[in-house]
Amino acid sequence: MAELTGLFSPGRVAVVGATPREGAVGHAITSNLIEGFSGEVVGVNPNHDEVLGVDCVDSLADAGDPDLAVVVVPPGIAVDAVREAGECGVGDVVVITAGFGETGSEGATRERELREVAEEFDLNLVGPNSLGVMSTPVGMNATFGPDDALEGSLSFMSQSGAFITAVVDWANDQGIGFKDVVSLGNKAVLDEGDFVEAWNDDEETDVIIGYLEGISEGREFIETAREVTRETPVVLVKSGRTDAGAQAASSHTGTIAGSERAYEAGLEQAGVLRAESVQELFDSAQMLANQPLPANESIAVITNAGGPGVMSTDAVGDSRLSMASFSEDTLDSFREALPAEGNVHNPVDIVGDADVERFTGALEAALADPNVGMALVLSAPTAVLDYEELAERTVELREKHDKPVAACFMGGERVAPAAELLREAGIPNYFDPARAVESLDALAEYREIRGREYDDPTEFDVDRERVRELLDRAEQRGDNRIGVEAMEILEAYGIPIPDGEVVSDPAEAERVAGSIDGEAVMKIVSPDIMHKSDIGGVKVGVPESEVYDAYEDLVTRARNYQPDATLLGVQVQEMVDLDSGVETIVGMNRDPQFGPLLLFGLGGIFVETLEDVTLRVAPVSEREADAMIDEIDAAPLLRGARGREPVDEAAITETIGRLSQLVTDFPEIVELDINPLVATPTGTTAIDIALTVEQ
Amino acid sequence: MAELTGLFSPGRVAVVGATPREGAVGHAITSNLIEGFSGEVVGVNPNHDEVLGVDCVDSLADAGDPDLAVVVVPPGIAVDAVREAGECGVGDVVVITAGFGETGSEGATRERELREVAEEFDLNLVGPNSLGVMSTPVGMNATFGPDDALEGSLSFMSQSGAFITAVVDWANDQGIGFKDVVSLGNKAVLDEGDFVEAWNDDEETDVIIGYLEGISEGREFIETAREVTRETPVVLVKSGRTDAGAQAASSHTGTIAGSERAYEAGLEQAGVLRAESVQELFDSAQMLANQPLPANESIAVITNAGGPGVMSTDAVGDSRLSMASFSEDTLDSFREALPAEGNVHNPVDIVGDADVERFTGALEAALADPNVGMALVLSAPTAVLDYEELAERTVELREKHDKPVAACFMGGERVAPAAELLREAGIPNYFDPARAVESLDALAEYREIRGREYDDPTEFDVDRERVRELLDRAEQRGDNRIGVEAMEILEAYGIPIPDGEVVSDPAEAERVAGSIDGEAVMKIVSPDIMHKSDIGGVKVGVPESEVYDAYEDLVTRARNYQPDATLLGVQVQEMVDLDSGVETIVGMNRDPQFGPLLLFGLGGIFVETLEDVTLRVAPVSEREADAMIDEIDAAPLLRGARGREPVDEAAITETIGRLSQLVTDFPEIVELDINPLVATPTGTTAIDIALTVEQ
Repeated sequence: MAELTGLFSPGRVAVVGATPREGAVGHAITSNLIEGFSGEVVGVNPNHDEVLGVDCVDSLADAGDPDLAVVVVPPGIAVDAVREAGECGVGDVVVITAGFGETGSEGATRERELREVAEEFDLNLVGPNSLGVMSTPVGMNATFGPDDALEGSLSFMSQSGAFITAVVDWANDQGIGFKDVVSLGNKAVLDEGDFVEAWNDDEETDVIIGYLEGISEGREFIETAREVTRETPVVLVKSGRTDAGAQAASSHTGTIAGSERAYEAGLEQAGVLRAESVQELFDSAQMLANQPLPANESIAVITNAGGPGVMSTDAVGDSRLSMASFSEDTLDSFREALPAEGNVHNPVDIVGDADVERFTGALEAALADPNVGMALVLSAPTAVLDYEELAERTVELREKHDKPVAACFMGGERVAPAAELLREAGIPNYFDPARAVESLDALAEYREIRGREYDDPTEFDVDRERVRELLDRAEQRGDNRIGVEAMEILEAYGIPIPDGEVVSDPAEAERVAGSIDGEAVMKIVSPDIMHKSDIGGVKVGVPESEVYDAYEDLVTRARNYQPDATLLGVQVQEMVDLDSGVETIVGMNRDPQFGPLLLFGLGGIFVETLEDVTLRVAPVSEREADAMIDEIDAAPLLRGARGREPVDEAAITETIGRLSQLVTDFPEIVELDINPLVATPTGTTAIDIALTVEQ
Repeated sequence: MAELTGLFSPGRVAVVGATPREGAVGHAITSNLIEGFSGEVVGVNPNHDEVLGVDCVDSLADAGDPDLAVVVVPPGIAVDAVREAGECGVGDVVVITAGFGETGSEGATRERELREVAEEFDLNLVGPNSLGVMSTPVGMNATFGPDDALEGSLSFMSQSGAFITAVVDWANDQGIGFKDVVSLGNKAVLDEGDFVEAWNDDEETDVIIGYLEGISEGREFIETAREVTRETPVVLVKSGRTDAGAQAASSHTGTIAGSERAYEAGLEQAGVLRAESVQELFDSAQMLANQPLPANESIAVITNAGGPGVMSTDAVGDSRLSMASFSEDTLDSFREALPAEGNVHNPVDIVGDADVERFTGALEAALADPNVGMALVLSAPTAVLDYEELAERTVELREKHDKPVAACFMGGERVAPAAELLREAGIPNYFDPARAVESLDALAEYREIRGREYDDPTEFDVDRERVRELLDRAEQRGDNRIGVEAMEILEAYGIPIPDGEVVSDPAEAERVAGSIDGEAVMKIVSPDIMHKSDIGGVKVGVPESEVYDAYEDLVTRARNYQPDATLLGVQVQEMVDLDSGVETIVGMNRDPQFGPLLLFGLGGIFVETLEDVTLRVAPVSEREADAMIDEIDAAPLLRGARGREPVDEAAITETIGRLSQLVTDFPEIVELDINPLVATPTGTTAIDIALTVEQ
């Protein structure tokens, strides 16, 4: 998509609906715009010749070719104003006006019209129902919020305008600056994916951050974000995480919130760092904007205080970081420099009487150690320690060794000037060791994301036409739960099913039973009988000699149970020995935002109670399918825990991959469960399947 | 224990080791003490007549009957100084001097001597290796830290002196005050339990907080804290949570850190609120000190900003709180007061143009609703909202309705004066909705703790003598892993085991097999053969007719495997049908700090991989045993998930209770696993047991 230069660096901005009336949105925006903006501003309002000292014209056609139109007219005429912008060749439009999709059906119709106009003229349109946009390098505040943002390298999008006003006021106080800020509004045209893409191409943006309540095009966003996050970190708060939150989100903006689990999987696959709170969002973003990525995940903690040292170690244990093991050289240098009561191992305790020399000597030795990826300087206030000097030397060492450093100079007033020195050099200082460690953890997380390899999904050789036929046949019958064809559908996509066939007379049943190994399982096949076991419609362990009678018995039971049921025959299958394998589940559910969501986990009776499952948005590569197996808690059971033979993991991977291909090829499959998929040392077999299509 | 009046409100304090030498600890303490202390100070140092304007005497005997002696002399003479204090009738002593248990074996000996002297004279002794104590009502700072604390109602103990200096500096900056502060040092005499108890009796202490690296007497602490937390909340950071952290803790203070899981269980049973970070510690403590407990766990969120409202709902979802459902009256009042775009359901969206009247009207209606236990006032900055007025009105309403309220006036400078108004009234204001919700959650957690009922453990009728005999017999043999007697030990404590006996000839085996239901399980019994199955020493499903031959075969196999093994016979047992029940595990491990730790969870092959288990320090009451069953993820499986018959939960509760009694009665049992304990609809049976005793 789209360059957004006209949006964030316009030479000339027209405010359609500019007004001198105080309290009006058209007044606030004009007033914000004229203050500090390096470009030109023109008002569009037939009732005025001038607004706040700015020329005001009757229509956009007279506005002297603006690059950006900000529309603040009432909803009834907003679509016309946007059309006029298109006709005049204005490429970028921000619609502040509310009263669209977030209100009733009239608003929804209006929003559809707006989208059509934007498409017709290929407009980059923000909103409607937006607070506006800001871009600090050109001094542009085209919002009706109360504050200008400071200049910085974070670009920030938010689905909540109120959140922008709150964040900007707070960030000004904290000295945190932004490159661009955009209030997404209803996302009728431009959405989060467009901004992520545009900001990746923007040299002045170091980190992309956002507050989202929903993602418009899940799969597309994953593809975009994967590319972007190779170069530019993206940190998002996605709210509506819990059920209660999701309800609030949908009543708020009219977004149909996708399920939290889909977002969890999707954002993880997209390479997005997900923040759970505002604090985490900004702690992570500032660290990513100001410090280099670590070469490894090992942290050195240098401290003059044993207790806080232990707290930092706890925090490291909660994170993906690990406490660095120092090289012998480093240990020797600690041994030389530290008193006997000190601790040369991590966390390095340089003891309470340490001065700045001992502190920075230890820090330098640690940063010089190739085993150390990053450091935490953790200090309690003492009489012998000059915090400001320690801050200055810490800044020098951070730059000299080009490794990330966080600080925990604990204390209050005594620390303030040192903290300011650190902050100016991009080193965060937190009172709480846990928070300092978490900020470093964000760097390690992004390092992992940057190192990811994304493969294409394997293309298996499958019989797509056969599945087409089987689904069409079910559609003709009007079934949306696929019964008898489901196993055949799996077979057509190469997913192993038990040997056997559906037969329609007892002699055929005997023939099939003769062709399979061991005893047989026999099941009645009828679209009208859902719970076969309950009516005695399933027989297991049937020897070949009893198959004929068993066939007749099954049919009799079905007839007695429901005389008008359509009987399609009896399925005769080999018995799969469940004891020799592990019961897993492989399934798919279609999410409104992300599309097919694959599930893998421990199957059988444990699936519901323990929920030991993992999810991915399909299609998945072999690498991703492998990772799914790794992620479940019960993975050791697959790998031969308690003296069992390991199962064939490659076969599970392949089954996941083939299922992924199936549900990607056939969007009408909305739900599919293979439970159990029995995994044994020699392969997998799909024992039971439930499949639903959209009719 | 112990009144600590002499420690925290002494009339006269002697500094043993007072000195005019700048930089010395004896100087810092004297200097801190004379500033602001309402009592008298006397120095003890034969080299001086006066220190910093304070009289200095040659020995404690001449010090004019001080209530408290602060000892800062070198380690070599510190024990003598404490003895002198005892001889002079000084009841309370703080030993600042380091060089005791935290150093080598010489220090450990010295610490033992110190403890003996304290016992001899019944001294309340803090330390050694302590930063000192403070008590703000009498203006006493008997520490060598740089800052005096502000006056307040939190009493604070810390196992790290450095942490105290850091916290006091920071707290002064935040306006947070303390009643007493104590640096626990090595806890040679007084420990956390003593202070918790003493502060509970102190009317000026509202909340007890602490930083601990270990707990000296686990079970005793639980008993004390249970009583205390009925009246006074206790919030603790216990560091050394992770494996890495625990290593750092033990190298730091010489505490043998109990396992994290024991602490987790023990602190939970003690009714302690556990904070994971410094931020959480103080957020919780301030809320508990300043606000009433809620009547229920339902929260009302009143907001002018939809997005942050969704974020608060997420935070509520992560907590024990729930979003309140309003009464019809409340909804009606919202409907009247709010514009059409508003949301009358929780989170109540009063829309961006809300002024203070609409805000406080909605807040008042919510607080008046009996369904509402507490409220969050959540606001983004807008042009129509006067934050200071909103703060004042929020304070009034909080007091009027006597329900807890937290604030999230989002923003920076714009919010500062309002935040200060709120803070003065004990209402915290946080930028992050998640943090505001967490602070309210601490109140709900303490409400739950206050409502707890602690019952005595059930005393079951058991055969204690029989177990004594069996354990003695094993001891005489020199076994520490109990084999053959283990099942009998369970039986003596009324824990159901399979029918059967250990026999020593094949005819006896036949007789026993004839007396039990169905087929038999037969196992070789030998203290020398640990892994019976591996050598074919176990036979299952043996029909009565084959028992004779099976006996001989088992004995032959054992002889062939290990000719010199002691064979005690063959165990002949009924077969328990594993398929009809759920395999659970009940076990015990003895923790160095907390003693016997009971474990319950899902058994069989899943116990290790899924770790779906819960723990309690023994002894446990029936209520606690019930709670253990509730807590495992697989609990629904016990209650008849997937159409199975529910198992007999009362039988599991009883088994846990009987095991609790067994391990409490016999401290030499150090480890015990019943795995599986099969739970069926009619009871439980211990199938396999491993039991280790200390020899």
